[in-house]
Amino acid sequence: MEALADFDKEVLLGLFADLEAAEIARLLESIPDSQRGQLWSVIPQDRNGDVLVELGEVARLSLVKYLEHEQVVEAVSNLESNDLAEMVDTLPDDVGEAIRQSLDYHGLRGLEATLAFPEDSVGRVMETDAIAVRSDITLETVLRFLRNRESIPDHTPSLMVIDRQRVFQGVLHLSDLLTHNPSVLVEEVMDKDGLFIAPNASQHDLAIMFRDLDLISIAVVDEDGVLLGRVTLDDMVDILHEEADHQILGAVGLDEEEDLFSPILSSAKRRLFWLGINLATAFLAAWVIGLFEATLQQIVALAVLMPIVASMGGIAGGQTLTLMIRGLATGKISSANSKWLAYKEITISAISGVTWAIVVGIVSYFWFSDIRISMVLAASMIVNLLIASLSGFGIPMLMKKVGIDPALAGGVVLTTVTDVIGFVSFLGLATMFLL
Amino acid sequence: MEALADFDKEVLLGLFADLEAAEIARLLESIPDSQRGQLWSVIPQDRNGDVLVELGEVARLSLVKYLEHEQVVEAVSNLESNDLAEMVDTLPDDVGEAIRQSLDYHGLRGLEATLAFPEDSVGRVMETDAIAVRSDITLETVLRFLRNRESIPDHTPSLMVIDRQRVFQGVLHLSDLLTHNPSVLVEEVMDKDGLFIAPNASQHDLAIMFRDLDLISIAVVDEDGVLLGRVTLDDMVDILHEEADHQILGAVGLDEEEDLFSPILSSAKRRLFWLGINLATAFLAAWVIGLFEATLQQIVALAVLMPIVASMGGIAGGQTLTLMIRGLATGKISSANSKWLAYKEITISAISGVTWAIVVGIVSYFWFSDIRISMVLAASMIVNLLIASLSGFGIPMLMKKVGIDPALAGGVVLTTVTDVIGFVSFLGLATMFLL
Repeated sequence: MEALADFDKEVLLGLFADLEAAEIARLLESIPDSQRGQLWSVIPQDRNGDVLVELGEVARLSLVKYLEHEQVVEAVSNLESNDLAEMVDTLPDDVGEAIRQSLDYHGLRGLEATLAFPEDSVGRVMETDAIAVRSDITLETVLRFLRNRESIPDHTPSLMVIDRQRVFQGVLHLSDLLTHNPSVLVEEVMDKDGLFIAPNASQHDLAIMFRDLDLISIAVVDEDGVLLGRVTLDDMVDILHEEADHQILGAVGLDEEEDLFSPILSSAKRRLFWLGINLATAFLAAWVIGLFEATLQQIVALAVLMPIVASMGGIAGGQTLTLMIRGLATGKISSANSKWLAYKEITISAISGVTWAIVVGIVSYFWFSDIRISMVLAASMIVNLLIASLSGFGIPMLMKKVGIDPALAGGVVLTTVTDVIGFVSFLGLATMFLL
Repeated sequence: MEALADFDKEVLLGLFADLEAAEIARLLESIPDSQRGQLWSVIPQDRNGDVLVELGEVARLSLVKYLEHEQVVEAVSNLESNDLAEMVDTLPDDVGEAIRQSLDYHGLRGLEATLAFPEDSVGRVMETDAIAVRSDITLETVLRFLRNRESIPDHTPSLMVIDRQRVFQGVLHLSDLLTHNPSVLVEEVMDKDGLFIAPNASQHDLAIMFRDLDLISIAVVDEDGVLLGRVTLDDMVDILHEEADHQILGAVGLDEEEDLFSPILSSAKRRLFWLGINLATAFLAAWVIGLFEATLQQIVALAVLMPIVASMGGIAGGQTLTLMIRGLATGKISSANSKWLAYKEITISAISGVTWAIVVGIVSYFWFSDIRISMVLAASMIVNLLIASLSGFGIPMLMKKVGIDPALAGGVVLTTVTDVIGFVSFLGLATMFLL
């Protein structure tokens, strides 16, 4: 960090020689946008491509702005087609075009084949470097084959086993290859229950599988059983992190690719938009309050107490909403158990509602010495907490059904509901019973 | 799920035979607490221990309530000392005592050695099953050794290389073992830059290392360089997920171990507590409004508009706060770059403040036709958005310094600040200039 501040080129060159691409990427993301182009020049050239892959989308875009097309093309020239596809997908069209034009026939075909799979499908991250052996040869032959090959790609805990038609038969774990007598056949020691996945399956589901089963690599097999390639840990490990970031940042209207150190103006634009939406809902709430101006005019204590009901509704509903969004994202909520969950959330909100209704009733009575105000406050608290938990449960379920992302829009809709219901129930009951 | 609903024992037995422990654990977490004891009986006995390890803390506790001590002791009897330590740490004292008493001398010593490392340190998750070989033998000898051993533990991409004093020398990747001539020495093909870590290092830092470098296993080495054991992927992969859950759920006052399907009463207790804290801050805000009762009495339009300023402050501050907490947790914010970040956040809030001040000024003028009210509203908007971003930046930095967890307490403190400043600035300015 100190070397960065002074931009001591010698020190940085030495430092970067020892760092992995992911670590360099994280350093780039931790400095202001404007300094990134400069820092790029001291990254060892052989790691340029991997650093680009490891960067977040926004940071990558911001960096590429400072580079010539040739520099990008040069950097990505050694990438596999799955990483190339991500570059073409996320970089500006003219950069993507330059990358395409730099490819030979074989490379271009690989890129197009990858891009033909749906976005977020397993096919998009599939690698074609899987080592496959036939089941009817001996371990001795496999060992000789590997020695001739002279290298095994990273993240290969097992070899794929196929038949003459490249149909996937299972996997041969390196541990079994190493611990068995070389004279036995592959089919005698192979793992016939070796896992595989279809190229059209979702990356999200596969990522959960990787996490739950601690996988390092999995075979990708088409509908005829033919081995197409494999997916490895390194492409899966970030997916669930990105989804968690999506919920964390989405809840406050930020993109999960939001980049702490992106330029001020582009950050400001996105934030202005979000504040604008919230300002609209705040004006809606103000308009609702305005409907009761005559009531407020007569009993000013209502103005003092009214934010309490709305605020408690927002907090209680937010708890239910957050649990629901998390549960839906991690696959823990299904139609089979959602009824029980709804029952649980409503019961909790009933308990909360009654408890805090009694407390606010008592406190407000000591404050304003008016039992009718206290009763109205208590009643509207119960109403709003019930509506809040129903909304916290129902909004994400409904949004998921109609294809809106609850992590982004859920919070705004919920607060709008709890604000409006909070003010209407409190001021409405007051108008009915106090005037 | 259907088999679960009917509790069809035959179907469940068949189903569970094919599932990994982590999948069974996730099923257990997806059904109401009360049915878990029943389901436990159909889990294949050899997987009982692993299922307990994979369960979240709250779900594990809830399940163990339904089991006899002997059942728990039986289940955990095959666990390694790092998993045993977690059990003893998280289960009730009497269950932990029963586990201790079931261990032989060797097992007990292993458990105590693990528990002697600080919580959340690498030593707590260290496994002792690392295969180590000497550097002065041939690959042929290593191959023979492995064949005699007959098995290699999961997640072993490389063997540890040590000298006569068990001092760590590097690692021998299985891929190098397989692709080199058996007659060469280990020291000729070993990776001398093999990574290692100290047992007292933090699990969080190691988890970030695992993610960034796509590690599968790492050597644990004491201060004299002696190999103690290793840490594998499976113990690291969940740590960063739990930290993300901590921020997601902590922001609404829930525990990251909060269990969607835990009993209603225990969930209700935790939620009541959180709503209580928020009620206290809502009363504080109400008290602040109460200070201006006389002003509100005279100009009721102020009551209509006052929630706008407070709400916008909460939203804007929440964005900064969320980014800061995430940045601190993922190690992207340090003292070297925090100044730039503060400058960025304050600039953004100044831009937002001025923009939305103009908008609310115009809208409120059309609504109430009083230029002075509009000016007061606009001015207090600028003030509150500036304070909001300063607080969103400063609160987590300060909390981190004094050891309070910003993910848990940051939001409440921030909203209290933005509410109070929002109401005081708007009603205060109104009292000064409108009366």
